[in-house]
Amino acid sequence: MYQIRTDLALETQEKMQEDHVELKGVRFLEQKIDKNLTISTVVIETENGAKAMGKPKGTYITIEALDMDEEDEDYHREISVQLAEVIKKLVPLKKEDVSVLVVGLGNREVTPDALGPRVADNLFITRHIIKEYGKYAFGEEKVNRISSIVPGVMAQTGMETQEIIRGVIKETKPDLIVAVDALAARSTKRLNRTIQVTDTGINPGSGVGNHRHGLNEKTLGVPVISIGIPTVVDAATIVNDTMYNLVTALTQSEAFSAIGSSLDKLEDAEKYELIRELLSPNLNTMFVTPKDIDESVKRLSFTISEGLNIAFGNGIMQGSHA
Amino acid sequence: MYQIRTDLALETQEKMQEDHVELKGVRFLEQKIDKNLTISTVVIETENGAKAMGKPKGTYITIEALDMDEEDEDYHREISVQLAEVIKKLVPLKKEDVSVLVVGLGNREVTPDALGPRVADNLFITRHIIKEYGKYAFGEEKVNRISSIVPGVMAQTGMETQEIIRGVIKETKPDLIVAVDALAARSTKRLNRTIQVTDTGINPGSGVGNHRHGLNEKTLGVPVISIGIPTVVDAATIVNDTMYNLVTALTQSEAFSAIGSSLDKLEDAEKYELIRELLSPNLNTMFVTPKDIDESVKRLSFTISEGLNIAFGNGIMQGSHA
Amino acid sequence: MYQIRTDLALETQEKMQEDHVELKGVRFLEQKIDKNLTISTVVIETENGAKAMGKPKGTYITIEALDMDEEDEDYHREISVQLAEVIKKLVPLKKEDVSVLVVGLGNREVTPDALGPRVADNLFITRHIIKEYGKYAFGEEKVNRISSIVPGVMAQTGMETQEIIRGVIKETKPDLIVAVDALAARSTKRLNRTIQVTDTGINPGSGVGNHRHGLNEKTLGVPVISIGIPTVVDAATIVNDTMYNLVTALTQSEAFSAIGSSLDKLEDAEKYELIRELLSPNLNTMFVTPKDIDESVKRLSFTISEGLNIAFGNGIMQGSHA
Amino acid sequence: MYQIRTDLALETQEKMQEDHVELKGVRFLEQKIDKNLTISTVVIETENGAKAMGKPKGTYITIEALDMDEEDEDYHREISVQLAEVIKKLVPLKKEDVSVLVVGLGNREVTPDALGPRVADNLFITRHIIKEYGKYAFGEEKVNRISSIVPGVMAQTGMETQEIIRGVIKETKPDLIVAVDALAARSTKRLNRTIQVTDTGINPGSGVGNHRHGLNEKTLGVPVISIGIPTVVDAATIVNDTMYNLVTALTQSEAFSAIGSSLDKLEDAEKYELIRELLSPNLNTMFVTPKDIDESVKRLSFTISEGLNIAFGNGIMQGSHA
Repeated sequence: MYQIRTDLALETQEKMQEDHVELKGVRFLEQKIDKNLTISTVVIETENGAKAMGKPKGTYITIEALDMDEEDEDYHREISVQLAEVIKKLVPLKKEDVSVLVVGLGNREVTPDALGPRVADNLFITRHIIKEYGKYAFGEEKVNRISSIVPGVMAQTGMETQEIIRGVIKETKPDLIVAVDALAARSTKRLNRTIQVTDTGINPGSGVGNHRHGLNEKTLGVPVISIGIPTVVDAATIVNDTMYNLVTALTQSEAFSAIGSSLDKLEDAEKYELIRELLSPNLNTMFVTPKDIDESVKRLSFTISEGLNIAFGNGIMQGSHA
Repeated sequence: MYQIRTDLALETQEKMQEDHVELKGVRFLEQKIDKNLTISTVVIETENGAKAMGKPKGTYITIEALDMDEEDEDYHREISVQLAEVIKKLVPLKKEDVSVLVVGLGNREVTPDALGPRVADNLFITRHIIKEYGKYAFGEEKVNRISSIVPGVMAQTGMETQEIIRGVIKETKPDLIVAVDALAARSTKRLNRTIQVTDTGINPGSGVGNHRHGLNEKTLGVPVISIGIPTVVDAATIVNDTMYNLVTALTQSEAFSAIGSSLDKLEDAEKYELIRELLSPNLNTMFVTPKDIDESVKRLSFTISEGLNIAFGNGIMQGSHA
Repeated sequence: MYQIRTDLALETQEKMQEDHVELKGVRFLEQKIDKNLTISTVVIETENGAKAMGKPKGTYITIEALDMDEEDEDYHREISVQLAEVIKKLVPLKKEDVSVLVVGLGNREVTPDALGPRVADNLFITRHIIKEYGKYAFGEEKVNRISSIVPGVMAQTGMETQEIIRGVIKETKPDLIVAVDALAARSTKRLNRTIQVTDTGINPGSGVGNHRHGLNEKTLGVPVISIGIPTVVDAATIVNDTMYNLVTALTQSEAFSAIGSSLDKLEDAEKYELIRELLSPNLNTMFVTPKDIDESVKRLSFTISEGLNIAFGNGIMQGSHA
Repeated sequence: MYQIRTDLALETQEKMQEDHVELKGVRFLEQKIDKNLTISTVVIETENGAKAMGKPKGTYITIEALDMDEEDEDYHREISVQLAEVIKKLVPLKKEDVSVLVVGLGNREVTPDALGPRVADNLFITRHIIKEYGKYAFGEEKVNRISSIVPGVMAQTGMETQEIIRGVIKETKPDLIVAVDALAARSTKRLNRTIQVTDTGINPGSGVGNHRHGLNEKTLGVPVISIGIPTVVDAATIVNDTMYNLVTALTQSEAFSAIGSSLDKLEDAEKYELIRELLSPNLNTMFVTPKDIDESVKRLSFTISEGLNIAFGNGIMQGSHA
C-alpha cells in the first residue's frame, strides 16, 4: 500500500478512513472544546491495530488549536493548561513526589528541529534545589523533582540518544521520562497548530531528525510520555501526496473521464510507481516548512514548557491522583 | 502560459527551452570550468527579451559548483576567486579608488533569508579607516572604500529597504551598490550550489523575502550589482512543477497512451487549472529548504564575503581596469 | 580633578556631592514611588552646569527599580508603564499623529552592547501599515507611525551612525528620534536596575560602544529622546573608584592614622597619579558585567520596548497633549 | 594568607614567587618556543605541594600565545598543532584505538562560559560512524572513536554535571575523558591568550561557572584531561589584586615613605581586611571580560577543537605511543 510519512497517529487514522481501510483494534474519539480547540484521542489497542497503523500500541492525544501559531499570550496559556490536563491523564504514576526527567530531543542548530532543546531551556527545574535544601525550599508539602537534558543529535555527539538517556537514568533514577520532539506531519495545515502527547515514547524513524532507536519503557525501563509538535512536512510527502490526489482526481473527474477510465485500471502500486519516477531524488533531504518557522518554534516551545511547568510544578500534580 | 517562480535567469531560460519557446533578444553562453564548476551567462538584450523572460534587461552570470555546499575550505576559496572575477567583469567603474556600499538584504531571524545579513557580517570594511587615516593606512596606493549596511525587512523597520538605502546613499555617496540576497529557485538541485551575479540590481517580487520595490540604477541613481544564492524553493512551485511533469509525462508515456492522448488535447492553461484545483492554499506561506540550511547559510555567506573581499579589497581591483 | 566614567547624570551628580562640589545651574529632584521604585530628575539648566557635569544641557530622568533584573512579568509591566510616562513627559511634540524613528544603537554581537538592537526587535512597528492602508487600519483615529532601524557599529558598517541616521531621516522625515543604547555606569549596583531617559540625545563618548559623534537635535535637525540602561562598568572605573575609596579611607581611618596624616597631604591629583601607576594598561579594553548579562539584556530589552509600545502605540499618546 | 582566585596553576606559582613563598614539591619549567609562544609546565609532585598551591597533584601545561586572540588563521593552526602535542604528552594511554569522550562544560547562554559547548560543536565526531561501518570507513588502520557531550549547567538540568557524565561513561565506556571549560584568571593580560592543559581533570570551585563537584579519575574511574582558556577575571579578584599592589607599593614607595613605614607593620591578614571592607558586595556576581569576548570565544573554540581533531583524529595519535 502507498505509504505516507507522518508522526501524527491522527493523520494515519485519517488516511485509513480516506482509503476506506477498516481499522480493527483502534479506537478514535474527537472532542470539540470550542471553535478553536479540538482534542482527538487515538487508542491503538491490539498488535494488529499497531501493525495497520505503523505505530506501537498506546494512547495518542492530539490538541489542535487553530490560533496556536498566532501571537496571543493569553491563548497560549489556555493551550498550556489543556496540555497539562492531557499530560496528567497519561501519567501512569501514583506516588506523591515524582521525579521527572524531561529530554529535549532534536538539533538546536536546525530551526524546525530545535523545539525539544528550546522547551528544555524554558522549564522550571527543581531537582537540584530539592536535593540541596529539601522540598520545603518551595514551601510546599509535595514537590516534584524536575530535571532536564538536551542530548544533542548523533552527528554531534557520536552517541545514540538512547545511550545518553540510559546512562543519565542509571545515575539519577527518575520515575518518568518526558521526551519532547519536533515532528513531521503529512499536511501543512497541521504545522505549528497541533500538539501530540502519547504514552508510547519515541519510536524509531520518528521526528524531524529521524531517530534510529526508540526511547520507550521497554528500552529505558521507565515510563516515557512524549510530546511533539509537527514543524515540517517531508518534501517527498507533500509532492507524493498532492500527486496521489491528482491521479485519484483524474480517475473520478468527469472532465477527464477518458483518462479516468484508463487510470482506474491502475493498481495503487502502479500509481505509486508512476509518481515515484517523476520525483527528484533531491527531495529526500528537503523539507517544507513555514516562512516564519524561527519565530514559531520560539513561541511554541514556551507553550509546551509552560504546560509542563503547570503539570508537574506548583503541586498541581497531586490533583491528578486524588 | 504556465508560470513558475524562480529568481534565476538561468532557470527561466531552461524552462523556455523545455517549452520550445523561441527566445529573441536573449543570448546564452555556458562555460565549463571543470567537472565541478560551470559558469553560465544569460544576456537579456532587448525589451522583448525582458518581457519574455519576466526579468529586466542586463547580464546574469551564474556560477554553479556541485561541491559548493560541502565542507571544504580550499574549494570555497576557489569559488570565491571565481566570484571575484565575475564581479569585476560586471563592475562598470573605471575610477582608481571605488567607494562600494554592500547591502545585506533579508531577515536575520529567518534562516534561509539570512544570507545577506551574514555576508555583511564577514566583510572587510575599510571606509571608516580610510576616512580617518587616509588610504595609506593599508600601505597601498589604491584602496577601495567598503561600507555595508543590513537594512532589515519592512515588518521590522516600518520602512521600505529602498527608502533606507536611498538615504544612506545621499549621505555617503558610494560609486557602486552591491546587494546580496537569498533567492528562490525552481529546482531543489540548485539550492546552495549556485551563485547568480547580475548588473540589474534587485527587482520587485524577487528574493526569499519578496521585495516590493526595486534597488537598481534607476531607483537609486547608482549602479547596482546583485549577488544571490537560491536557498529555498516555493512549496507551490515544487508541487506545481512536479505535477506539471506528471501531466506531461502522461501525455508522452507509452504505458499510459490512452491517458496520454486525452491529456494531449488539453491546453497548457487547462493543465494548469487542473493542478491548481488540487493545490492546498496553505502552500503559499511554505517553502522547501534542505535539512541543513542553517549550516549551509553560515558557510555560503563566507564564500560570498570572501569573493567580495577579493574583488574589492587588497588592491586586486586595479587589475580590472588596466 | 579625578574623573570617573559614567553615562548616568545621576551618578555624576552624586559624585559631585561626595566631593562637596557646589553645583550651580543644576536642579535635582528625587521621587520615591514605592520601596522598589525611585524616579530622579537631574536638570542641567546652564552652560556652566553642563561644563561642571560634563554633559549637555537638558533633562535626565532616571528610573531605578531594585527588582528590575528579576524574573517577574507583572513588575516589568509596571516599569514599562512608568517608562511610558517619563517618555511622554519629555516628548516635545504637540501634533496629533507623530512619526517616530526608534534607533537601536550598539553591537548585536557583543552581549552587553546588544540592548538597542534587541529593543528594536520587539517594537510594534506601524509606519508601513499606515502608509499602505491608512491609519484606520488600526481602527483608531490617532495612530502614531513607528519605524525603527538598527544601524550597526562603525567597524561593521564603515559608516558613522550619524551618517546612516541622517540619511534615513532625509528620506522618511520622522518628527522624533528615540535612540536606545546600553550605557556604562560607575557603580555595579546600578547595572540592569536603572533606566535613564533624556531629551539631550546621544553624545560623543557615551555608551558601551563609545559613540564618536552625537545624535541630537543639533546634528540631526529633529528632537532626540535617548533611553539607556547601564549594562557595564569600565574595568578601569571600578578599580580606580575602589582604590580612590581606599586612599580616602586611609586618610580618615583611625586605625591607620599615621598613614592617614601622610596621605592627607596629598592632592587629589597626586592620589590619582598614585592609582594610575598601578593600573594595568589591559584594563582599558575590559569591562565589568554581571554573570547573567545575556539573560538580563534579553529581559530588559522587552521592558523598554513595551514602554515604547505603550508610550507611542495604542493611541495612549493623545493623553499627553490633551 | 591573602588568597587570589585563579584557575591557572601558572598564576598560583607566580603569586608564590611574588610573595617569596618557598614551594616544595612543585617543579616549574618554562620553554620559549618563539617570541610569541611560551610553554610552561608546573608539576605538583607531593601532597604538600598540592596543599600550598591549592590544586591537586598532577601536571599543568600552559601555552601562552600573545597573538592568539587576533584574527590570523595560520597562527591559530600553529597553536592547534602545539596543543595537540601537549595533549599527546599528557594522554596516559597505550592502546591502539582510543575511545575519547569530550565534555563541553559551561553555559552556552553566557558568552564567556560558552567555550566548552562551542568546542564540542566543532569537533570531528567519529564514534557513531566506526560503530556502524567499522574503522575502515575512514580508510585508516587505526582510528580513534571520538564522542562528545554538552551536559549544560545545574540550573538548566537540575543534575550535577558529574551525574550526567558518570551515566554516559557507564553506557559508552570511553577510555579517556577530555573536559573543556572556560577559566577564571587573576590577570586580564592572560585572558584569551592562554591555554591550560592538565591531567588532573576538573576540580571543585574551578571554571567560570564554578563547578561544585570534580570530574577526575577518582570520581569518574577514567583518566581525565582538562583543557581551559581563561575568559574572565572575577571582579573581586581584579580589585583585590590591584589594591593589594597599592598597599604593597605604599610600603615600598620612597615618595610615600611615611605611609610605607606604617603599613609595613601590618600583617598580610590586616591588609586583606582593610581591602575587604572597601569592596562592594555586588562585585561577587560580576566579572571582568574583554569587550570583544563574543568574537574571541567563537575563534578560540575553533583553535581548541582543531587541536583535539589533530591530536585524536587522522591517525596522528599512533605517533605518540610508538
